Amino acid sequence: MLKFEIHTINQKARRGTLKTAHGNIQTPAFMPVGTVGTVKAMMPESVKETGAEIILGNTYHLMLRPTAERVASFGGLHKFMNWPGPILTDSGGFQVMSLSGLRKITEEGVTFQSHIDGSKHFLSPERSMEIQYLLDSDITMAFDECVKYPAEYKVVQKSMERSMRWAKRSKEAFIDRDGYGLFGIVQGGMFEDLRRQSIHDLTAIGFDGYAIGGLAVGEGQDMMFSVLDYTACALPDDKPRYLMGVGRPTDIVGAVYRGVDMFDCVMPSRSGRTGQAFTSHGVLNMRNACHIDDHAPLDAECTCPACRNYTRGYIHHLFRAGEILGSMLLTMHNIHFYENLMKQIREAISENRFEEFHDRFMSRFQNERKM
Amino acid sequence: MLKFEIHTINQKARRGTLKTAHGNIQTPAFMPVGTVGTVKAMMPESVKETGAEIILGNTYHLMLRPTAERVASFGGLHKFMNWPGPILTDSGGFQVMSLSGLRKITEEGVTFQSHIDGSKHFLSPERSMEIQYLLDSDITMAFDECVKYPAEYKVVQKSMERSMRWAKRSKEAFIDRDGYGLFGIVQGGMFEDLRRQSIHDLTAIGFDGYAIGGLAVGEGQDMMFSVLDYTACALPDDKPRYLMGVGRPTDIVGAVYRGVDMFDCVMPSRSGRTGQAFTSHGVLNMRNACHIDDHAPLDAECTCPACRNYTRGYIHHLFRAGEILGSMLLTMHNIHFYENLMKQIREAISENRFEEFHDRFMSRFQNERKM
Repeated sequence: MLKFEIHTINQKARRGTLKTAHGNIQTPAFMPVGTVGTVKAMMPESVKETGAEIILGNTYHLMLRPTAERVASFGGLHKFMNWPGPILTDSGGFQVMSLSGLRKITEEGVTFQSHIDGSKHFLSPERSMEIQYLLDSDITMAFDECVKYPAEYKVVQKSMERSMRWAKRSKEAFIDRDGYGLFGIVQGGMFEDLRRQSIHDLTAIGFDGYAIGGLAVGEGQDMMFSVLDYTACALPDDKPRYLMGVGRPTDIVGAVYRGVDMFDCVMPSRSGRTGQAFTSHGVLNMRNACHIDDHAPLDAECTCPACRNYTRGYIHHLFRAGEILGSMLLTMHNIHFYENLMKQIREAISENRFEEFHDRFMSRFQNERKM
Repeated sequence: MLKFEIHTINQKARRGTLKTAHGNIQTPAFMPVGTVGTVKAMMPESVKETGAEIILGNTYHLMLRPTAERVASFGGLHKFMNWPGPILTDSGGFQVMSLSGLRKITEEGVTFQSHIDGSKHFLSPERSMEIQYLLDSDITMAFDECVKYPAEYKVVQKSMERSMRWAKRSKEAFIDRDGYGLFGIVQGGMFEDLRRQSIHDLTAIGFDGYAIGGLAVGEGQDMMFSVLDYTACALPDDKPRYLMGVGRPTDIVGAVYRGVDMFDCVMPSRSGRTGQAFTSHGVLNMRNACHIDDHAPLDAECTCPACRNYTRGYIHHLFRAGEILGSMLLTMHNIHFYENLMKQIREAISENRFEEFHDRFMSRFQNERKM
């Protein structure tokens, strides 16, 4: 059971606090991705310094290595990875479909091969709940099936209906405790009636929060927003809403505008490792030779350690020389940029000026096609 | 000009302070290697937290990328890489011989090809002094020639004699300033008379400190110690003595015992990136499966962040998963281990019990062949 308080609403945008066993999360919130028990290239202390209050762990990766049972023997994922704050884990469903080898899906669950060593594994709603319990996740995600985009109506419908049956089994298998919660996942692809059916089924079961799955799969921002337009505000008002795997800064601002409270995405960390920097003036590719003699910081408006203490020229040098510190500094900066964006969003909502913030942000970055 | 004060002497071991423009260095000192403007996989703040007071930069790497002139335009190496403490740079001589492509050596200097892009470059005593001046090194090394080991007497002699002529040109080209110093480098391979001749020539020129080059090149610890036996204490008593590129912990303890004050080595950082951990019980390979369920820290006697907050099992997991954080934590720990060893050495000398420390350390680790 999780407590969620909403403090301010600006049209559809909400400013709130979600309370978990390992601490409070101010929403709208962005969760850095800690795939396999580490936010790549960052010390947990540095993750906290970015302003992040919750991180995400991947059930699929952790069940294969080091295994959920082993993480439990180390006292759970928080202790294992030295992150004392809240953790949300996904159910494994999405990555089984995107990463693993040979799969066999039945009503019972999914049998699949590890992408690491080809070993055989099984995931079901019950096993996913057990794994996330062993990991000691503050927020557990229901186990769902994910279809590739684009897919035909019948395929999406069949998959969504199975996901709803699995959501019910997830709820039944989830061990409720104070400060721990279970989120259901809305499916239905780009079809409004299927999304509405999914919401109907999930709310009948009852969850601590509701995630929107199956977006940011290549449909484009316009279509994503149009799905959010009828999905987000159809979810229960008093529970947090989580848009999975999203996204670019404009995706996030547009989704908050449509009523979403939580986000996760590998973009700031992954792009940091490949030399991309998110800044208040758009995205920079730090590998480009134009930065070689630039004495300016990545972003003059940013207060992160990478911007306070280093020049673009130095960071360019690190990427040219293939130095690990380049990945460390850009990951740090990018996550700081995302967390600072969330802070600005929360402040704008608190001060009843989010619509203006949204309009300015979207016109500034969307027209420039930079974010 | 550098000030060097010796506080305590235990037989040949010396405890002192070397004062530079960017701060004081307590000796005996270990210098982590910051090859190309970064101690690999570490934030400079973390390097400082290990207890390191001075780091080393490589002239060869920095002259090729980003170039010494560019580092100077960023305010020197300290500002460029955000390391406000003292920096020693090597002369480039050793790495020209070990890393670069086609070389042509004349009395004037060395023409060579970059290992990065095959471009042609030139190094001479005068150019090496200029580069190290541009980098703003607190301690500049004289430009020398290095021969491969093993080499015949005549070859070593000819090379040493050239290095002595280059040392004189280095001294003439070096711009002396308060807090900045130039070290000469003793050469002569494993031949006592050549080493003595080299020391004679260098002291006639006069330097702020004296390095011992051409060791740790595959000759083995016994032979290295036997060269140190007649080399170290033949150097001027009132100047710091630096053993270049050394080494394992037992090498360092044995060299301090023979009168050496300063060390540098890539071993703690490089072996950290490949999964080796130096501990008070010997070296551990963190990739080994034996660590998978180990809840103990790397080293129960260590106070570094990697030992305070993480288990061997977690660090093993990071290396198995190929995570950057594994390299970050082990580099941090290993450099902390080295710096803590230097602290113990300094304390033992101050308390007039270094001989006992040396004997216990050497018998403990040399018999076990672990360090």
